[in-house]
Amino acid sequence: MTARRSPTRVRSVEVDLGERSYPVRIGVDTLGDVGDAIKRRTDAKLAIVVTVPEIGRRYAGRLMRSIRSAGLRAARIDVPDGDRTKNLRQVGTLYEGLLEKGADRSSVLVALGGGMVGDLTGFTAATFLRGIPFVQVPTSLLAMVDASVGGKTGVNLPQGKNLVGSFHQPRLVAIDAATLRSLPTRQLSAGFAEIVKHAAIWDAQLFDALEDQAERLFALDLDALVPIIERNVEIKAEVVSRDEREQGVRIQLNFGHTLAHAVEALQGYRKLLHGEAVAVGMVYAARRSEALGTAPAGTADRIEALCQRFGLPTAVPSFPRSAYLTALRVDKKKRDAHIHFVVLEGIGRARTMALTPAEVAADLPRHAKKTAGGTPGRGGRGVGRKSGGA
Amino acid sequence: MTARRSPTRVRSVEVDLGERSYPVRIGVDTLGDVGDAIKRRTDAKLAIVVTVPEIGRRYAGRLMRSIRSAGLRAARIDVPDGDRTKNLRQVGTLYEGLLEKGADRSSVLVALGGGMVGDLTGFTAATFLRGIPFVQVPTSLLAMVDASVGGKTGVNLPQGKNLVGSFHQPRLVAIDAATLRSLPTRQLSAGFAEIVKHAAIWDAQLFDALEDQAERLFALDLDALVPIIERNVEIKAEVVSRDEREQGVRIQLNFGHTLAHAVEALQGYRKLLHGEAVAVGMVYAARRSEALGTAPAGTADRIEALCQRFGLPTAVPSFPRSAYLTALRVDKKKRDAHIHFVVLEGIGRARTMALTPAEVAADLPRHAKKTAGGTPGRGGRGVGRKSGGA
Repeated sequence: MTARRSPTRVRSVEVDLGERSYPVRIGVDTLGDVGDAIKRRTDAKLAIVVTVPEIGRRYAGRLMRSIRSAGLRAARIDVPDGDRTKNLRQVGTLYEGLLEKGADRSSVLVALGGGMVGDLTGFTAATFLRGIPFVQVPTSLLAMVDASVGGKTGVNLPQGKNLVGSFHQPRLVAIDAATLRSLPTRQLSAGFAEIVKHAAIWDAQLFDALEDQAERLFALDLDALVPIIERNVEIKAEVVSRDEREQGVRIQLNFGHTLAHAVEALQGYRKLLHGEAVAVGMVYAARRSEALGTAPAGTADRIEALCQRFGLPTAVPSFPRSAYLTALRVDKKKRDAHIHFVVLEGIGRARTMALTPAEVAADLPRHAKKTAGGTPGRGGRGVGRKSGGA
Repeated sequence: MTARRSPTRVRSVEVDLGERSYPVRIGVDTLGDVGDAIKRRTDAKLAIVVTVPEIGRRYAGRLMRSIRSAGLRAARIDVPDGDRTKNLRQVGTLYEGLLEKGADRSSVLVALGGGMVGDLTGFTAATFLRGIPFVQVPTSLLAMVDASVGGKTGVNLPQGKNLVGSFHQPRLVAIDAATLRSLPTRQLSAGFAEIVKHAAIWDAQLFDALEDQAERLFALDLDALVPIIERNVEIKAEVVSRDEREQGVRIQLNFGHTLAHAVEALQGYRKLLHGEAVAVGMVYAARRSEALGTAPAGTADRIEALCQRFGLPTAVPSFPRSAYLTALRVDKKKRDAHIHFVVLEGIGRARTMALTPAEVAADLPRHAKKTAGGTPGRGGRGVGRKSGGA
């Protein structure tokens, strides 16, 4: 891990995508600098901050003052919290709001919040007037290390999650790690799941570092956490730079996501947070890797232990094996269509294997009873047809 | 004009956009070859033809047989005809239809029809599963020479036309000029308006050729018309290749569109077809060019005469000057914000001038009375904020 420190303590990672390249700035208490950065990165005259009420109440004021100090007009639009309204209707409402605020091609949207706000705002920016600039100001750990970098935007359809969207790279990602202090613990854990994932597939040294200081990190010691965030952004940026459209290496970011998507769908997206489901899926995929002979024994145990130190669940929720099989099927018309399942070759190295749903499910309990975890059903249809991981 | 003839009489123009390049194939009675071309240009397993009932009844059968002969599965989705349903609700209905037909990332959408079908299908393809391939099979002259090339996709909002959309280049444009035989005459005229536009801004020789053989072309002598279509595709392709995102030269394609958009909005999009409004706008813009001293005297007369030979209206509809001024304003909050108005420097050469709405409107009748043309209002707000031209 490189821990460059600039005099102002703002670190910057470049996402290298040719003319669509952009910097990810990482600092502590840097919300007041975002306006200047927006001004430098766009020639926008009006910045419209899109947020949820809870986050907006805490941070929108400071952000908008900073935007105004930089000489731009600022406006704010609140959207309801939660994944349920990340849909086309909400996008339509946002378009209306943008027109009311006078948005045009010289406006920039600023997504202030977690992954949901980023996905929704990004998709709206991608499609309003055939695309206007947008900036990510992520306030959840998951959005900081994962969702805000890479340009994936999307909304849900009744038939499944993120079935609609586009690739639209932000002009800037501005991370103020101090905003994590208001993040609920469960969501903090969920963010660490993606951090563990990056380490597991890409960076054994990072994995060691996480094992060394898990409690310090989980307690939000920002001196320790900021370099970890930076390293995670570097990993995500590297993967995305090599494969913007998810046609190759970026698929590795789906480590743990195959089972995670099945779990989420079976639970109707009501029990586990996405990161929690990913933790479950990673431990399962690591055990599968050991069973398939790609990863040495003990790999899964290390991942499980680390996840648990970050407060993450790791046990596979009990659903009938047949339900898992159905949920795992990518192509509902072809029962045995192969899944690009991400396996580990050890801590820090991953690859994909083409497995049938039955091969993916081989280590699931044969006769699992539904003991907990809500009702299967809603959203199940879309499972596996998209990736929420990369 | 180059009139290359390959042995099979299919001409091909390449739209050069790096990795997003694609061919525009132009022929007569070539609908039966489209399946093979789709197979060569995509690795799709399923092609979903999106069309309107009237066009589908005539041509979808042949197209789908050709797709199946090439070894792809084929499905068809009909959308209602007319610009009124080119909206987000219709896009939502299309997403549903795609899921029902089993569309996934290995599917291709095929837009069979005019500009509305292309815009709607292109936007749906751009956003379904974060973007799947699409192919244009334009059946209107306007779509052949203009809308199907360049990757602009879009749908309307209640507040204005094409306010939502994206740039999503097709993998292939397949023009069968024989389909023009079923095109209503008024729509044929509207297509010629964009042909006159291309000649006026870009190619004096083409303008001469149009003057030489207007009646033959308008009577659908395909031996004469196919090379003209080819030349127009070349012009559009050249402009788009140089400026995919409409930040420079592509703006010239808006020649005639400033007033056209105002006219359309004031008429509530109910009287003139887009191409007809463009004819009105071009003649007006040419007169303005003469008055501003950029174009020699007689320029506007030549354009007007040619438009009239293609059955196009050229007189500015009577609305109060104040209504035009309101409709012309790009930024409703800044009365005098400049418009990038496209002026001619003569037949075959154009450039933009920054004019205030009042300067654009200077040649409109001072006290025009509303004598005809429907009610102003609907859509007026969006006027000028987008371009339908390029």
